[in-house]
Amino acid sequence: MSASDYLGYVAALCSTSAYAPQVIKAWRTRRTKDISLKAFSVLVTGQCLWLTYGYLKGEWPLVASNMVTLCFTGTILYLKWCEPPDCKPEGRRSAPALGE
Amino acid sequence: MSASDYLGYVAALCSTSAYAPQVIKAWRTRRTKDISLKAFSVLVTGQCLWLTYGYLKGEWPLVASNMVTLCFTGTILYLKWCEPPDCKPEGRRSAPALGE
Repeated sequence: MSASDYLGYVAALCSTSAYAPQVIKAWRTRRTKDISLKAFSVLVTGQCLWLTYGYLKGEWPLVASNMVTLCFTGTILYLKWCEPPDCKPEGRRSAPALGE
Repeated sequence: MSASDYLGYVAALCSTSAYAPQVIKAWRTRRTKDISLKAFSVLVTGQCLWLTYGYLKGEWPLVASNMVTLCFTGTILYLKWCEPPDCKPEGRRSAPALGE
């Protein structure tokens, strides 16, 4: 195996496992206010499409890595959906009003 | 071009553009408390490795898509780094103390 193949495997490992710390953080704190619902909806959609693409082309590494990543991003999307509506995203943080 | 190729292009578009809404949200609100620094550090590392891998293999679509995604995730990582230290991630949201 060449050096660039090793590089590809490490890159795949990073891309696949990157969301694990975000899942742990969101699960522990149950806070997802600063996470963009749109971003993770598009991300999950993209991973479902990559999964289908990999299946149609018989590219099993693509299927396997996207299944793992989908578990992470799907969990984050679920936690974002479950966010209580009172958590309105605050506007730009301005100086606290006097007496606050 | 076959249907699965179209699927691949749409999947690539989703994966590449997914972080744009997160960049806009973080830029506007300057709030990144709920975003995991570890997750985006690993994500940026993975994209740098994919970029190098694509360059070594001459896979220019891989290089192009990871350059775009790196601009987004790199911006989010920058905003997370710039987060003022007073923004301690709150613990699990418990019931507000009486009188609070």
